[in-house]
Amino acid sequence: MPAVTRQEFRDAMARLGAAVNIVTTDGPAGLGGLTVSAVCSVTDDPPTLLVCLNRGSPQNRLFKDNGVLCVNSLAPGQEALSTRFAGRSAEADMLERFSHASWGLLSTGSPVLDGATVSFDCRIAEVVERGTHSVVFAEVEAVRQGAASRGLIWFSRDYHPIGA
Amino acid sequence: MPAVTRQEFRDAMARLGAAVNIVTTDGPAGLGGLTVSAVCSVTDDPPTLLVCLNRGSPQNRLFKDNGVLCVNSLAPGQEALSTRFAGRSAEADMLERFSHASWGLLSTGSPVLDGATVSFDCRIAEVVERGTHSVVFAEVEAVRQGAASRGLIWFSRDYHPIGA
Repeated sequence: MPAVTRQEFRDAMARLGAAVNIVTTDGPAGLGGLTVSAVCSVTDDPPTLLVCLNRGSPQNRLFKDNGVLCVNSLAPGQEALSTRFAGRSAEADMLERFSHASWGLLSTGSPVLDGATVSFDCRIAEVVERGTHSVVFAEVEAVRQGAASRGLIWFSRDYHPIGA
Repeated sequence: MPAVTRQEFRDAMARLGAAVNIVTTDGPAGLGGLTVSAVCSVTDDPPTLLVCLNRGSPQNRLFKDNGVLCVNSLAPGQEALSTRFAGRSAEADMLERFSHASWGLLSTGSPVLDGATVSFDCRIAEVVERGTHSVVFAEVEAVRQGAASRGLIWFSRDYHPIGA
């Protein structure tokens, strides 16, 4: 049986809902941030999540070299910020990209987004390369729950608010 | 800085929304199926997703031994089925568990859930063990899109329908 085509796979994946996250990093290699929906919990011992990052992105190396990242799961109202961080951006534009929101710090120095539904500040423990993407295993050093009781989901190629 | 506790991590993860999926397998090692929210896209070349499976589950070995799985992403109305597949179940009860829905086949022989929003029939390519969980990389051999234009999300420890 022939494998499914890329387009068939993408069309099918569009129907598997996922939280919208802006994943950030900062450190000796520089400041970075991009929108990622491929984030999931791996284990709570030690608390670990994984993030799939495109190897074709100029930012891929930034995350690995800094060795830290923060997953900021977005709230309704942050759609424009998500779209801003989803585009490819030259290094010189990174500060401009970040200037459209307020950011704090927790443990690793990676930017923590004000108003996010929840943020996970992490240290990278392992990277598994798989095809076009790096699967980054990250141990959670600190969490911050935002005031928002709602989340933002990407489904059928559109944003959907969720929760009470 | 002390690491976050398991409970803090779980409470934070409850705020990162995720699709509700029933992941199934069948083959020489036997029939299996359980509810999993930790599923995400890895790469479209070749089309690959990953599933995080608890190593403490008796079913963990079943998936690895069969070498195949199907990710069935649920639609609104399938909440009771999700709850049924979320519980631990003795091997003898597995057929009973499956008897509460209709199933088809695509490529690998793993059960494909009728009425799912989308199903990904996969062959396991690699397993990375990480703490309490196995991260299963699976190459997609076939997909089936259901008639439902809505999905089912787990967020704040509750089900939420999503989509038009």
